[in-house]
Amino acid sequence: MTSKPLDYENLNENIKKCQYAVRGELYLRASELQKEGKKIIFTNVGNPHALGQKPLTFPRQVIALCQAPFLLDDPNVGLIFPADAIARAKHYLGLTSGGLGAYSDSRGLPGIRKEVAEFIERRDGYPTDPELIFLTDGASKGVMQILNTTIRGASDGILVPVPQYPLYSATIALLGGSLVPYYLEETANWGLDVNNLRQSVAQARSEGITVRAMVIINPGNPTGQCLSESNLKEVLNFCYENNLALLADEVYQQNIYQDERPFISARKVLMGMGLPVSRELQLVSFHTVSKGYWGECGQRGGYFEMTNLPPKTVEEIYKVASISLSPNVPAQIFMGLMVNPPKPGDISYDRFVKESNGILESLRRRAQIMTDGFNSCRNVVCNFTEGAMYSFPQIRLPAKIIEAAKAAGKEPDVFYCLKLLEATGISTVPGSGFGQKPGVFHLRTTILPAEEDMPEIMASFKKFNDEFMDQYDEYAGYSRI
Amino acid sequence: MTSKPLDYENLNENIKKCQYAVRGELYLRASELQKEGKKIIFTNVGNPHALGQKPLTFPRQVIALCQAPFLLDDPNVGLIFPADAIARAKHYLGLTSGGLGAYSDSRGLPGIRKEVAEFIERRDGYPTDPELIFLTDGASKGVMQILNTTIRGASDGILVPVPQYPLYSATIALLGGSLVPYYLEETANWGLDVNNLRQSVAQARSEGITVRAMVIINPGNPTGQCLSESNLKEVLNFCYENNLALLADEVYQQNIYQDERPFISARKVLMGMGLPVSRELQLVSFHTVSKGYWGECGQRGGYFEMTNLPPKTVEEIYKVASISLSPNVPAQIFMGLMVNPPKPGDISYDRFVKESNGILESLRRRAQIMTDGFNSCRNVVCNFTEGAMYSFPQIRLPAKIIEAAKAAGKEPDVFYCLKLLEATGISTVPGSGFGQKPGVFHLRTTILPAEEDMPEIMASFKKFNDEFMDQYDEYAGYSRI
Repeated sequence: MTSKPLDYENLNENIKKCQYAVRGELYLRASELQKEGKKIIFTNVGNPHALGQKPLTFPRQVIALCQAPFLLDDPNVGLIFPADAIARAKHYLGLTSGGLGAYSDSRGLPGIRKEVAEFIERRDGYPTDPELIFLTDGASKGVMQILNTTIRGASDGILVPVPQYPLYSATIALLGGSLVPYYLEETANWGLDVNNLRQSVAQARSEGITVRAMVIINPGNPTGQCLSESNLKEVLNFCYENNLALLADEVYQQNIYQDERPFISARKVLMGMGLPVSRELQLVSFHTVSKGYWGECGQRGGYFEMTNLPPKTVEEIYKVASISLSPNVPAQIFMGLMVNPPKPGDISYDRFVKESNGILESLRRRAQIMTDGFNSCRNVVCNFTEGAMYSFPQIRLPAKIIEAAKAAGKEPDVFYCLKLLEATGISTVPGSGFGQKPGVFHLRTTILPAEEDMPEIMASFKKFNDEFMDQYDEYAGYSRI
Repeated sequence: MTSKPLDYENLNENIKKCQYAVRGELYLRASELQKEGKKIIFTNVGNPHALGQKPLTFPRQVIALCQAPFLLDDPNVGLIFPADAIARAKHYLGLTSGGLGAYSDSRGLPGIRKEVAEFIERRDGYPTDPELIFLTDGASKGVMQILNTTIRGASDGILVPVPQYPLYSATIALLGGSLVPYYLEETANWGLDVNNLRQSVAQARSEGITVRAMVIINPGNPTGQCLSESNLKEVLNFCYENNLALLADEVYQQNIYQDERPFISARKVLMGMGLPVSRELQLVSFHTVSKGYWGECGQRGGYFEMTNLPPKTVEEIYKVASISLSPNVPAQIFMGLMVNPPKPGDISYDRFVKESNGILESLRRRAQIMTDGFNSCRNVVCNFTEGAMYSFPQIRLPAKIIEAAKAAGKEPDVFYCLKLLEATGISTVPGSGFGQKPGVFHLRTTILPAEEDMPEIMASFKKFNDEFMDQYDEYAGYSRI
């Protein structure tokens, strides 16, 4: 039989090449086990509501009213919606051209982009232009748009941290570009050392690669570190010296679990550096409604902000955005609400603050419980989750486990994670999905299971891990260093 | 100064090449004029709610409740929501893993995909598999995914009707493939002649192009024709003989304004053809919540259904979908509601039917008013809009207008549409954005302005057109044929 156009062997090779471990082999196996009736704890993806986090009340009230604008004329509406939610729904509906059912401008609603610009100015202390802010269906879609604009072919390289969030490796493969890795230093709490950047760029250039852009993820995913101002300054100087655009993935900016290094945006540091860098370095910053303490992943809302991109480039990005007409409008309003939450004195303010703090404080406690839990396990070492929503412990696998994995035709960390899944129902992502130094193994888990479930989950993990190590480890005294 | 990575000259060439006229020069000029205070009638894009169409009440009630699930526990909820909307919201929330704030599976919620499969079976009379139905953020995103999977490089060709919806030309350019045009016959009410297909494929092959897939848009955009069963059979046979996958854009299947040729899906015709074609021909069919009489464009919901695609290909498409995690969940529920509207006996049934019929009947009248209006104008001829939501009149431009356009550095149809916009505020899309035979000129307008505004809009169009023709036409008796 002739092979047909959509048979596997005839597909676009870049499609086949890309890998996305967050929903890869482990997730698929977990889904199968769930279908068979096993209780699965999905910690493979940062999806807070799926693990029981309740949505914040105020934004949901506003969106519900925007979806059902006829309620605004209902005499009973005040019985179940507070007045400030009603007022806010009217405000946002006034910014649309026909409610939530009408396509917006392909960059998003101008009124919401203005609110985002005001938020950025309040956050950073520097004004910005709403025309340089594009709303998107989640941050991932924005990253894909910018990488698509940047990558021209296989010899275009993008500097990506290792470990990284596999959106980057997958998209670069899909677009036929080259990923240029730079290693984060696990022994320095996943710090970013500019010397590693220099080495990576030199290496790539020796291979004929034109390095065009650099990605930072701050706070880090999967690594959780928060970059300091001085570190960001080094990165910006490095990009300037090497003529790289900087893509700053800042989707976890609300998720900070220590007080020494509060989040600081790449844009704020850039603006503070003065001329010529502040007016020349090309920066694109990404944010979302999916992460933070809102966790509204399913709504698919985000934005990117462009700094120092020339108008002709912005026009091209606008043109490409217009092909899919507009980002979904409800999530645009979520973004507006997120950058413009209830203020002191508003009817809903106290409730909003109480709900928000409840989530953030619990996340901070969970980050600690998880790190401590991992560090109590045999052959496991784990840096503290300073920010974001992941824990990324190193699992020191004895030689016998590595051999057993090889015999089973699996990467050692995949082998470990599959065994963990089968034994405990905990669905994690192997470190190899994010990149790690050769011979070093990790897994990523979110810190999102309900706080009350945490002790049991960590006990279950420890039981599996320690028994598994016992089973394979000939040296009971295997070093922790 | 050195050129920087995101300066225009350094961008991906495919980004620069693609064009999307629906939001191109005319739309941008219209937006400028609007900012300057001019009243603009945006008929450039099929965006019903932006032109005053009210959303259907029942689906919006259900979604509002899903967004605010805490209302389900409010003792007053029954005062403003009917019981069937409350029950339906509970049903859909039960299909999610954490409400609308949780990412779903990257293919969409299994429960909704099942409802879509049941709808397809009811519509076509043949069962289908929910595992082969993927929900998407609007149909455009689905089309882009499938084209990305198909196109491997510049020598891969996709057969696309001319005139076409520029999503296809833009996406093919973006992906670096080749568009292989086949002409629709204007004199045969935009019919699809298989002889044209043969010629196009032969021509492409002589240029070294491997034609891999064919696109049909049924009902047609911008052309409005509805394909007959026998015509679809010819197309399917042609694809089978030439080893092409068929991409069936059926987003206007609810929008039919004549009774001779009701909508029939490519899949139904394929299944009816029997072996071997019915089991071998690879077909992907697209649908959306944006069009039809729902017009929920801003929600960005859609699906595609794959027929005869091998499991390994489906897995690859799933993997790529997983990179952006999941389509937005609220629009998935809109899709569920659309394929499963209120049934006779439900509390909301009568209202739903009344609202739906009101919109569809008015669209049918508007299609007629518009066709008649265009045909009453000098040098304008227009086929009747059998389906979809556009009118695509041919504008027979006298030589002097063509010269004037050239002198202004514009395509003649762009020149005409810009003059129309300046004079009347009517924002259309020039035919060149969709493709047309050389020397023949059109414009596309939607039939969506409010019915009561239609006579005035058509009068305003006629006044402009006839005066414009007078101004340039030396032969008052210019033929209509």
